[in-house]
Amino acid sequence: MKHFVAIEQLSVNDIHQLLDRALAFKQGEVVKPQPRFIANLFFENSTRTHLSFEVAQRRLGMQVLPFDASQSSISKGETLYDTLLTLEAIGVEAVVIRHSENNYYEPLVDKLKMSIINGGDGSGHHPSQSLLDVMTIREEFGTIAGLKILISGDLAHSRVARSNAYVLQQLGAELFFSGPAALYDESFNTYGSYCEIDEAIAEMDVVMLLRVQHERHQNNNDDTKTDYHAQFGLTNERAQQMKATAIIMHPSPVNRGVEIADELVESKRSRIVTQMQNGVYARMAILEAITQ
Amino acid sequence: MKHFVAIEQLSVNDIHQLLDRALAFKQGEVVKPQPRFIANLFFENSTRTHLSFEVAQRRLGMQVLPFDASQSSISKGETLYDTLLTLEAIGVEAVVIRHSENNYYEPLVDKLKMSIINGGDGSGHHPSQSLLDVMTIREEFGTIAGLKILISGDLAHSRVARSNAYVLQQLGAELFFSGPAALYDESFNTYGSYCEIDEAIAEMDVVMLLRVQHERHQNNNDDTKTDYHAQFGLTNERAQQMKATAIIMHPSPVNRGVEIADELVESKRSRIVTQMQNGVYARMAILEAITQ
Amino acid sequence: MKHFVAIEQLSVNDIHQLLDRALAFKQGEVVKPQPRFIANLFFENSTRTHLSFEVAQRRLGMQVLPFDASQSSISKGETLYDTLLTLEAIGVEAVVIRHSENNYYEPLVDKLKMSIINGGDGSGHHPSQSLLDVMTIREEFGTIAGLKILISGDLAHSRVARSNAYVLQQLGAELFFSGPAALYDESFNTYGSYCEIDEAIAEMDVVMLLRVQHERHQNNNDDTKTDYHAQFGLTNERAQQMKATAIIMHPSPVNRGVEIADELVESKRSRIVTQMQNGVYARMAILEAITQ
Repeated sequence: MKHFVAIEQLSVNDIHQLLDRALAFKQGEVVKPQPRFIANLFFENSTRTHLSFEVAQRRLGMQVLPFDASQSSISKGETLYDTLLTLEAIGVEAVVIRHSENNYYEPLVDKLKMSIINGGDGSGHHPSQSLLDVMTIREEFGTIAGLKILISGDLAHSRVARSNAYVLQQLGAELFFSGPAALYDESFNTYGSYCEIDEAIAEMDVVMLLRVQHERHQNNNDDTKTDYHAQFGLTNERAQQMKATAIIMHPSPVNRGVEIADELVESKRSRIVTQMQNGVYARMAILEAITQ
Repeated sequence: MKHFVAIEQLSVNDIHQLLDRALAFKQGEVVKPQPRFIANLFFENSTRTHLSFEVAQRRLGMQVLPFDASQSSISKGETLYDTLLTLEAIGVEAVVIRHSENNYYEPLVDKLKMSIINGGDGSGHHPSQSLLDVMTIREEFGTIAGLKILISGDLAHSRVARSNAYVLQQLGAELFFSGPAALYDESFNTYGSYCEIDEAIAEMDVVMLLRVQHERHQNNNDDTKTDYHAQFGLTNERAQQMKATAIIMHPSPVNRGVEIADELVESKRSRIVTQMQNGVYARMAILEAITQ
Repeated sequence: MKHFVAIEQLSVNDIHQLLDRALAFKQGEVVKPQPRFIANLFFENSTRTHLSFEVAQRRLGMQVLPFDASQSSISKGETLYDTLLTLEAIGVEAVVIRHSENNYYEPLVDKLKMSIINGGDGSGHHPSQSLLDVMTIREEFGTIAGLKILISGDLAHSRVARSNAYVLQQLGAELFFSGPAALYDESFNTYGSYCEIDEAIAEMDVVMLLRVQHERHQNNNDDTKTDYHAQFGLTNERAQQMKATAIIMHPSPVNRGVEIADELVESKRSRIVTQMQNGVYARMAILEAITQ
């Protein structure tokens, strides 16, 4: 595997092999330090993904170069390609990139010797998030096949939702989507069916909530948030209707009291913290596969 | 010791034990590397404290995660608690936090497994600074008991002054305070007595100056600075009245020519550079105690 | 060598000794890790120089402290001298500084124990760039003596051009300068002769282009860029007139289609990527010399 840019590039077998490595890392597997130079280019803010990659890299013994996008030569008008050419020249073997432009990596992947790991592109892909989500579900249920999974929220703008819908269907899950009709995207019909959250909630094995991206919306006041919670969010009442074995997931950061009730975030059913923990191990598996 | 948030949490015995370790580190004591992940969350600018902690962490062999507060998910509206929950999930065992809000750590300390080290909270506490100040005095005089110590400057807004007044009194010093009456806070009467700098200067063993925080004041012109220096600052004339064995201290950054005459900063009497050196060792002792 | 601030401080012998070490590093020479603390203070944006120094430092096993100029106490009004005094006190043995002020290092070099490595000062010097340029030419031709070298572009504002003109003349090259007359500086007459690029191009062994610093100029539109390229740039047509053995150099970042045709940047004649690669090794040699 040279690049890791979209979950769609992986076969079912690839996914399970990566997850086996991720779980081995979680169980404490230690690897020989890889003193390779790597850089994380985050052109959009992120705590979780950025630091999760950084911890994964350090645990693999990599040399992580500090790269501050806001202070780079990009601000002198340099293209992303020329920045990567520089990094390659000074010895960087792989980069993790988060960028606001969908498919930013397409003109780059064939022109560089270095590996590109996609840390999120616009509303396009977020494959390392998908991998950690699948890892968390497989760890819980032993398999994905046959599970009923609801993805609820702003589907149209979510880079997580599309990758997850694709990969979970590939792995045999039955998918349901809910959330505001205006934020639904009909292309999801390929993967599953749109419904009201109240119709589906009692049948689901996994309820996966998406973040309301307040920073992308206007009319972002407290009333709107309360309304969203009541109509589309996972309220305490809805959580009580869930199956005994069902779990709650969210890619974080969470808007407490909007897409999910505050008390549910760290509740027994929630795997939100587990997702963050698994993120490090899933990314170790990706980094190992890329640099082998 | 799980958290280190205020000097008031330490007994006299605790303080001396920490200082013994700090001095051992200063004398070259080497410890087994602690490959723990730690992060420094500085929500207010700082060179000295931030880098001093970073050097201390590296000398202890810790893995220091880069955290840029201005580019974190805090800017997406995430709470400090949720940011810490994320850091804990990805494997961070301790954080150093500087925050503009007094007592920011109070709602956090019981809810997290990770350790919190207070790197300064608003006008509240700055316990690692207190520890290095006490270290510098004990190193100089062998003891704190019986010393006459003057703290001069903007006492009301100083997070250093209050912690120091508390701990130095606990350790047996006799305290005096001076500076603009408008910037005095009567709560300091518990620890010592207010006086004019010219009344006290000749009797003091330690003259500890506080930084005039220009960025917090209006009317910040050259006249005001000259006036401050003449009325409240440590001028060359005042320094000449000091006892032969007396020392000058300042937490830095220094406003040369305002709270202290330019020439005195690196003079023979000054322990300002020593304070910065000791800061690294005092913080090594704190970090060691937290992570044991 | 305590400081490295200007190429003019080096004798011809010094330069060749540094280049011998740089080439040894390029050929894989490994050195004992130097666990010294070093910090990179970049008060102007830079990707290339900053990260190139960082890679060089890590390859030498140094401890690189993160220093964010925009978030430092400089923003509280602290002077550069006092910042360096702090860094020295906490154990930093050398700093790399890029600063907008010419000769910023002059008042500092005699007052500090730490080493200062100049990473670029205003329109003054950029000695590590000069060293990697000389390295690239010597690596190509085995010598500098007798080579015909053209430096073309905004000579007046370039910190690279002056250092290079000085050192290349010292080492025996014959120098030519071209570019807009308004951006020429007569002080270059000491080192060589001003000419039209079309007069000189066919005779040159090295064509060294300078970056058009759009951020310093007004009237920065596409017409201006096309005009510049046609009149002063290295067009495809001009490149075809170059000697079979001649090479193209540029300090980067490149404005493709302005000072150089897009296709030439990574062409067979171009040593632009080699310059970036050599930058790491040249800087390793500098760092080794400074810290010995």
